[in-house]
Amino acid sequence: MSSDHKFEGWCGLDKDSVKGQMKWQPYDPKPFTDTDVEIRISHCGICASDLHTLRSGWGQTPYPCVVGHEIVGRAVRVGAAVTHIQPGDRVGVGAQSGSCLRPECEECASGIENHCQVSNTNTYAGFFPDGSKSYGGYADYSRVPGHFVIRIPEALDSAAAAPMLCGGITVYSPLKREGCGPGKRVGIVGLGGLGHFGVLFAKALGADEVTVISRSSAKKEDAMRLGADKFIATNEEADWADKYALSLDLIISTVSSPDMPLEGYLGLLRVRGTFIQVGAPEDKLPGFLAFALIVKGCKIGGSAIGSPKEIQEMLHLAVEKKIEPWIQERPLKDANQAVVDMNNGKARFRYVLRNEKHEA
Amino acid sequence: MSSDHKFEGWCGLDKDSVKGQMKWQPYDPKPFTDTDVEIRISHCGICASDLHTLRSGWGQTPYPCVVGHEIVGRAVRVGAAVTHIQPGDRVGVGAQSGSCLRPECEECASGIENHCQVSNTNTYAGFFPDGSKSYGGYADYSRVPGHFVIRIPEALDSAAAAPMLCGGITVYSPLKREGCGPGKRVGIVGLGGLGHFGVLFAKALGADEVTVISRSSAKKEDAMRLGADKFIATNEEADWADKYALSLDLIISTVSSPDMPLEGYLGLLRVRGTFIQVGAPEDKLPGFLAFALIVKGCKIGGSAIGSPKEIQEMLHLAVEKKIEPWIQERPLKDANQAVVDMNNGKARFRYVLRNEKHEA
Repeated sequence: MSSDHKFEGWCGLDKDSVKGQMKWQPYDPKPFTDTDVEIRISHCGICASDLHTLRSGWGQTPYPCVVGHEIVGRAVRVGAAVTHIQPGDRVGVGAQSGSCLRPECEECASGIENHCQVSNTNTYAGFFPDGSKSYGGYADYSRVPGHFVIRIPEALDSAAAAPMLCGGITVYSPLKREGCGPGKRVGIVGLGGLGHFGVLFAKALGADEVTVISRSSAKKEDAMRLGADKFIATNEEADWADKYALSLDLIISTVSSPDMPLEGYLGLLRVRGTFIQVGAPEDKLPGFLAFALIVKGCKIGGSAIGSPKEIQEMLHLAVEKKIEPWIQERPLKDANQAVVDMNNGKARFRYVLRNEKHEA
Repeated sequence: MSSDHKFEGWCGLDKDSVKGQMKWQPYDPKPFTDTDVEIRISHCGICASDLHTLRSGWGQTPYPCVVGHEIVGRAVRVGAAVTHIQPGDRVGVGAQSGSCLRPECEECASGIENHCQVSNTNTYAGFFPDGSKSYGGYADYSRVPGHFVIRIPEALDSAAAAPMLCGGITVYSPLKREGCGPGKRVGIVGLGGLGHFGVLFAKALGADEVTVISRSSAKKEDAMRLGADKFIATNEEADWADKYALSLDLIISTVSSPDMPLEGYLGLLRVRGTFIQVGAPEDKLPGFLAFALIVKGCKIGGSAIGSPKEIQEMLHLAVEKKIEPWIQERPLKDANQAVVDMNNGKARFRYVLRNEKHEA
């Protein structure tokens, strides 16, 4: 296979790129090293983080950027030091590629490289530890550290696998770590890309009951079809906080708006329950009374994506439980329109860009 | 022993009682049942909760109240159903006496009766599940559910044991539960009654390093004498948040003021670190960016006192490690002045009322 690919993709040049103004143009990828893998991209999911990044919502983005970190395709060039991937393998890569991976890094050495603090850059569209820029998956090719490249199980469609690499793992990781399983009642706040994976994985992990919490009941039917057992519409049931108090062991909040009834959510938790925020609002969460945590010994936590090991575990669970995410394929050439539609909340529940030039 | 004691104590009659205006007067205790124990009080610690309760800071207090839930004395009357206590035993009781203790209560049945939600009343000066009023330890006698009465180990002074029953257990419980021990670096925010126990117990549990975090360095010398390894004065070190970033596995916050640099504290946590709030501000905690939790997978939690089993474990550790809390005995007759002094932050670090009428 050729090792001289042309790197072209949808480049965000400024904040307005999120309004459908990305430009298709060439760019220079990171220098290829013997620990890298080059992927000919067939699919890339559209994540809310892409939108935050395009508009510099989480801090200044180093334009030009190419977003997209739910990448699936074929390995077309594999560095000599990479042993777990062969050229031609169908592979995927998520968002962790900024981790330092040095043996002296406590996080990288202990299997939580997704929390590496040494290279705490914005890896969604930022820099690798060597200083070179990272470019994402709204493109023809991607060159990434092989450590984060994962073989996609044969039984899993590329289009289904892609959004699991960020959207899926973002909810799977805290569900698993916080004990989601038989005997547990789990709440999922927000039914978007992340939330819909939350319902699917919470059920796959064996939770007794999964409750979707949303503002309106507009998505109630979808929630039930996804497998949810209960639905709370906080803007339509005035007494929801009392009615459902003390009913959930674990809540995963996937919403990105900081304007949330946080104290009410905390009231839903049982004693020693945990609320995990995975949606990342650009503004501060509302303040709350410490009593909300003290009286029940509860916790509020956060979680960011997951490690390659967790991603593999999740993909195998998806195969075993025949998980079918609700995705809508969009041609890569229409990426600008897809981003606009995503921004307008039209995705049910995840757009996946399909690179029509490359076989799946 | 007589079973017909006269119940008299320092009664708070309104919010001004916290200003040194408690009145010594008689009151009617709960009806004695065969699960109760009556204690002739020799010592009672003064807890910040007493002040919150006297001034109705955590909600309306049902005056008249007698505060005080760090009670040590002699068992003088023991209900027929109480098997672990004999009349004459030197005993203690903390703040949990409002738990329902019914077998169908998940919390009470699983050893976390301090988190009982059935009788979620303010047990610091509130009601028992049977509806009768609870009265505390600024008094001659106390009548309490035997389940919460604990024998004080012989090697432990009554005056030292008293403040451990709330102040001590409030920090010991989360320290133990959150893994304080060898290999861990622990921060204690605030060096008051709770904070000083935090240093003592964190060291006793074997933490590698204990850091006290305070606004000024006024208490630095005391912190070091208590056994702390480091001291951060947040109002005196402009770059503290950066300088000590990522240095602590666990932080126990004992302060009651909601006006805290919470994001800075969270910055001190290492990946997957935990911040536990045990001081209970009357107002809301400040809002914060969810990123502070997401990027490092950290948690903010709360914790309330501990179970009788944990209290016993703590008392045995205190004996084993020869823990000597810094207490100042005050005569029970001077309770009003002691409360005023406590309110003015003069305690170093815990006042213990000594009932001069009763032997220790």
